[in-house]
Amino acid sequence: MATTDPSTTQIVLDLAGIFVFAISGALVAVRKGLDVFGVLVLAGTTGLGGGFLRDVLIGATPPAALQDWRYLMVPVLAGVLAFVYHPAIGRMERSVTVLDAFGLGLFCVTGSLKALDYGLGVAPAALMGMVTGIGGGMLRDLLAGRVPAVFRGELYATPALAGSIVVVALSHTDLSYWTIALIGGGFCTTWRLVAIWRHWQAPVPTGPASV
Amino acid sequence: MATTDPSTTQIVLDLAGIFVFAISGALVAVRKGLDVFGVLVLAGTTGLGGGFLRDVLIGATPPAALQDWRYLMVPVLAGVLAFVYHPAIGRMERSVTVLDAFGLGLFCVTGSLKALDYGLGVAPAALMGMVTGIGGGMLRDLLAGRVPAVFRGELYATPALAGSIVVVALSHTDLSYWTIALIGGGFCTTWRLVAIWRHWQAPVPTGPASV
Amino acid sequence: MATTDPSTTQIVLDLAGIFVFAISGALVAVRKGLDVFGVLVLAGTTGLGGGFLRDVLIGATPPAALQDWRYLMVPVLAGVLAFVYHPAIGRMERSVTVLDAFGLGLFCVTGSLKALDYGLGVAPAALMGMVTGIGGGMLRDLLAGRVPAVFRGELYATPALAGSIVVVALSHTDLSYWTIALIGGGFCTTWRLVAIWRHWQAPVPTGPASV
Repeated sequence: MATTDPSTTQIVLDLAGIFVFAISGALVAVRKGLDVFGVLVLAGTTGLGGGFLRDVLIGATPPAALQDWRYLMVPVLAGVLAFVYHPAIGRMERSVTVLDAFGLGLFCVTGSLKALDYGLGVAPAALMGMVTGIGGGMLRDLLAGRVPAVFRGELYATPALAGSIVVVALSHTDLSYWTIALIGGGFCTTWRLVAIWRHWQAPVPTGPASV
Repeated sequence: MATTDPSTTQIVLDLAGIFVFAISGALVAVRKGLDVFGVLVLAGTTGLGGGFLRDVLIGATPPAALQDWRYLMVPVLAGVLAFVYHPAIGRMERSVTVLDAFGLGLFCVTGSLKALDYGLGVAPAALMGMVTGIGGGMLRDLLAGRVPAVFRGELYATPALAGSIVVVALSHTDLSYWTIALIGGGFCTTWRLVAIWRHWQAPVPTGPASV
Repeated sequence: MATTDPSTTQIVLDLAGIFVFAISGALVAVRKGLDVFGVLVLAGTTGLGGGFLRDVLIGATPPAALQDWRYLMVPVLAGVLAFVYHPAIGRMERSVTVLDAFGLGLFCVTGSLKALDYGLGVAPAALMGMVTGIGGGMLRDLLAGRVPAVFRGELYATPALAGSIVVVALSHTDLSYWTIALIGGGFCTTWRLVAIWRHWQAPVPTGPASV
C-alpha cells in the first residue's frame, strides 16, 4: 500500500463519521435529562473519544482533533442540532443506527492504518482500529453512568475488530488506500448492518454465574 | 504576552487550586463511605485529574504533578484533613464552593496557557483550559459512581470555557502574564460565583425525550 | 542497582501477573451477565490497564503491551478460559485471590522500576508502582458500573504502595534487580495475603457524614 494520504475526501468521510457518532452521544445525553453542556460533552466524547484513546495510546499527541478546528466544530454542531431537534432526530433512530454502522466501518479503517503508520505490529494495530471504532461509545456510556452498550449482547465490537483485521491484512498488499478502505470498512459495516437486521447477538456465558 | 513564567507565586496559586479541588473530592468520598484510601485517591484525582488529562492529551508527559513532589503532597494533606475533620469541613461547604470557584478560574488560566505553549491552536487551547478546570471533578464523579455533577444543570463548565476563551484571546496581546490571568481567571470566577449566588442553571432540552 | 533487565524470566512473571488479573476481570464480567466481548474486554482491561495508565502518564507510548503480541494473547486466553469454565474457576475464587496477591506484588515492582527508568522522582515512581498494581482493577470496576472495590475497605492499595516504596528505596542500593524485586514484591504480597487471611480492613471515616 502507498503511504496514508489524508486527502480532502478522507477528511470529509472522517468528519461525517464523527458527526454520526456525536449525534448518538447527544441523544443519550438528552434522554438522561442532562443540560446543554452535558449534551455537548457527550457529543464530543462519543465523536472524538475513540480517536483520542488511540492517539494517546500510540503516542500521537496531541490528537488530530486538537490540531484542526473542524474536528471540534463537528461535534458542537451535532450537539446543538440534537439539543434543539431531538424529538425529530429520535424518531429517525433507525437511520442514525444505519449511519452509525458506516461510521464504525470508517473508524476501524482510519484507526488501524494510523496505528500501522506509528509502527505498531499487526495485532495491536487491529486492536487500535477496534478501539477507535468503539472507544467513543464506551466513554459516552461511562460518562452517562451506564454499563457500555457494547458489552450487552449487541454485535458491535466484533465487526469492528473483523474489519480492522481485514484492513491490517490488506495493508501488506499492493492495493491502494481506497481499495483497502472499501474492502475492510465495507466488511465491518456490512456485518454490523446484517447483525442489526437479523438481531444477531453476541454469545453470553452459559451455566450458573458462580455467585 | 511574554513566555509563561512559573514563578513561585504561580506555583503557590496552583497548589492552592489543587488543595481546594482535593478537599471537594475527599468530601465526596467521605459521604460515599469510602475508606481512607478512597478518600486519598478521590482527593488526588479531583485535584490533579484535570491537569493529567490535559498533559496526556497535549503530549506533555510525564505531567508536572509527577515531576514535583509538592503537587503530590497537597492532595494527600487535603485528603487526611478531610478524613479527620470532615464534619467541620462539611459545615463549611459554602466556603469550599466559593474557594472552588477561585480554583476553577485559576485552572482555566494555567490550562489554556500551557496548551498554547505546546503549540495548540486557539480553539483547542481554550478547550484544554476548560478540561483542566472540570476534568478533575468529572473523574471524581466517575470513580464515585455518579453522573458527573457538571452535566446536571449546575453552571460550572460554561464559566470555565468562557474564562479560557478570554485567556486565549488576550494571549495575543501585549498584556503581561498576570494581567491576562487576572482578567481571564477573574471573568471565570466571577461568572461562577454569580451563578451560585443567583442559582443560575444551564438549559436542559425541552420537549419529549423521544424514548 | 544495575539497569533493568527484561529477561525471559521477568517477561514470564509479567505475563503470569497479567493472566491472573485478567481472570479476575473476566469473572466480574461473567457475573454481570456481559457477552463474550465484554468478558474479553474486561479481561484485557484488568490485565493490562494498570500498565497502560502508567505508560501513558510517564510518556512511554505506545505501551509495551502494544509492542509485543504475547501481552495481548494472554488476556484473550484468560477471557476465553473464564467464559467457558467460569463455574469451575469461580469455585477456585480463593486460589484466584491468592494468585492475585502475587500479581499485585509483581506489578508494583515492574511499575516502580519502569517509572524510575523514565526519570521520575522517588515519590511519583512509588505512586506509579501503585497505579500499575491497582489501575487495572479500577478500570474493570468502572467499566462494570460499580464503585472500585479498592475503595471499599479491602486492604489492597496500601500493600501496593508500601511495596512500591520499598522497591524505590532499594533501587538506590547495590542490590541486584532480583533481590529488590523479591524484597519489595514479597513485602506487598505478604501484607496483602495477611490482610486477606485476617480480614484486615482499611479505616473508614468516623462521625456523621455531614450530608
